[in-house]
Amino acid sequence: MTGMIGTVPPALLRARDLLGPALRDSLEGLSPEVRRVVGYHLGFVDAEGRPSSGDGGKAVRPALAFLSAEAVGSPAGMALPGALAVELVHNFSLLHDDVMDRDLERRHRPTAWALFGLGQAIVTGDALMVLAQQLLLEPPSPERSRAARALAEATAAMIAGQAEDLSFESRLDVSPQQCLDMMARKTGALLSCAASIGAVLAGADDAAVAALADFGRHLGLAFQAIDDVLGIWGHPEVTGKPVATDLRAHKKTLPVVIALAGAGDERDRLFELLSNGSLSEETLAEAARLVERCGGKERTLLEAERQLDMALASLRRVPLEASPREQLEEIAAFVTAREF
Amino acid sequence: MTGMIGTVPPALLRARDLLGPALRDSLEGLSPEVRRVVGYHLGFVDAEGRPSSGDGGKAVRPALAFLSAEAVGSPAGMALPGALAVELVHNFSLLHDDVMDRDLERRHRPTAWALFGLGQAIVTGDALMVLAQQLLLEPPSPERSRAARALAEATAAMIAGQAEDLSFESRLDVSPQQCLDMMARKTGALLSCAASIGAVLAGADDAAVAALADFGRHLGLAFQAIDDVLGIWGHPEVTGKPVATDLRAHKKTLPVVIALAGAGDERDRLFELLSNGSLSEETLAEAARLVERCGGKERTLLEAERQLDMALASLRRVPLEASPREQLEEIAAFVTAREF
Repeated sequence: MTGMIGTVPPALLRARDLLGPALRDSLEGLSPEVRRVVGYHLGFVDAEGRPSSGDGGKAVRPALAFLSAEAVGSPAGMALPGALAVELVHNFSLLHDDVMDRDLERRHRPTAWALFGLGQAIVTGDALMVLAQQLLLEPPSPERSRAARALAEATAAMIAGQAEDLSFESRLDVSPQQCLDMMARKTGALLSCAASIGAVLAGADDAAVAALADFGRHLGLAFQAIDDVLGIWGHPEVTGKPVATDLRAHKKTLPVVIALAGAGDERDRLFELLSNGSLSEETLAEAARLVERCGGKERTLLEAERQLDMALASLRRVPLEASPREQLEEIAAFVTAREF
Repeated sequence: MTGMIGTVPPALLRARDLLGPALRDSLEGLSPEVRRVVGYHLGFVDAEGRPSSGDGGKAVRPALAFLSAEAVGSPAGMALPGALAVELVHNFSLLHDDVMDRDLERRHRPTAWALFGLGQAIVTGDALMVLAQQLLLEPPSPERSRAARALAEATAAMIAGQAEDLSFESRLDVSPQQCLDMMARKTGALLSCAASIGAVLAGADDAAVAALADFGRHLGLAFQAIDDVLGIWGHPEVTGKPVATDLRAHKKTLPVVIALAGAGDERDRLFELLSNGSLSEETLAEAARLVERCGGKERTLLEAERQLDMALASLRRVPLEASPREQLEEIAAFVTAREF
């Protein structure tokens, strides 16, 4: 989550503080090989294993988890195993996605696989996914068991979304709705789980859990839509990725599929460009211009707004504690307000 | 598990029959992209997606799971979710291990990643691991929750073992005990879980579960020791892998670390050969000869025998139903009697 602007909401800073020691503790049981890679990936240590104060990410998911417990009137601490678990699943997906997308940099540092090799990055992702489940299953309780089911379901959806996203790369006939469905799985499902798992662990009723889950899913879609705009038009120094990186990788993100779903000469020229195996720097720039002129950028940003509105409306559907609800709104505004 | 000799025990054939339809059903919920890769990997379809009667493996783990329920006096069906789950976790590990080891063939066919690409193989493995957990968590019950914990623990150990195994490749100072510990995690943990998960689901007491788990772990060590002998001296047409494949990959398997732990000129020459980056066909053959002359083959086979004895002794530690116990013994004999 690079390129976010504005003051960091206090709930995110608090989440990092609440999570930090527990996260480090939870990694203690992992094998030394895996711990080294996780420690680097999370920014605890540098490539040589020396302590580092690197950026381990914005802790958006843990923050949502903590606030979801408070929103139903329970202390934030109730959400801790859930906050840990969603953060571990998120990092499992980052480790594997970087391998699959052959991404060389994350948070302005070499990716784990680029540094430690493919095998260690894959196996470390595997280890984090299982650890996340273990944290919810042990010690057992009905609430934890329900949380473990919700997390497994979200993880399964996220993986299915990633498989679809990969398969879209070789397709030119993806519809905007298919793309939105994929985004709901790939990004929406885990944010939905994060935004409700604290309430699940607090034993909240189904209506409150469902409203919080809907908030998270719509927020995920809004976030992903904006991320996809940045993936084409974002400044490399802000995103930490090369310009037009998604077009380069033939990703069928929302701006692209909206543009391709239209008609006219510019749409046909875009189709022609994207039919080619690899794009030169020049055709990349032309493709980005064409996606914009076919309405791909504008309509994706409108979709992001629409999803953000639905996210906020979900929070008003059930009675929630006022302060945590306002902090959820603040996080929603923060992660969707980014520089273009 | 290639190269096994003798008549296939009826318990293995029955396990494939019991598991087959449930396994196909459980895959229905996966995304089409993932289903295509799993279907191929399991031998249900060929590379073009046409139905195939391919070899989906010997169903050793499901057979152990079914028998473990029967051994404590319950019907085999009680073990079904556990049998499915261990088979899915096993196949998750095969999919990922093939990527990490860059293996091009499995069961005499191209590996999934060689056919569908790295990304689809990784994401398919991920999907199977989560599906395994879901099958045990839904619908919830105390026994299923206990089984889910046991499976997560075994999966975590297996992953740690795989990470260690990978890290051993660049080391020459691995001790036989470190190697056995790694094998206990990489191979022993999941077989241990398979051999006890039916008893867990049947609500058996701790002593019976522990005895069955010990049986599985020792059997896993015996099996792995023999597999490691085949990994150096096995015939390619039997193992389905190139000759001396483990030496080629710088794997520090038990025969190698036993040989390196010795002393003398032959041990020193072996150390020298293995210190080199890549081995020629000629030096591979010389290295295999040296490992044998340093006692690596003989002592590994002795260790396999010792582990098999301990496996069988574990089954005698608690009262178990006679027929399933005999069938467990039969499977143990079958998977450890292989051609060299």
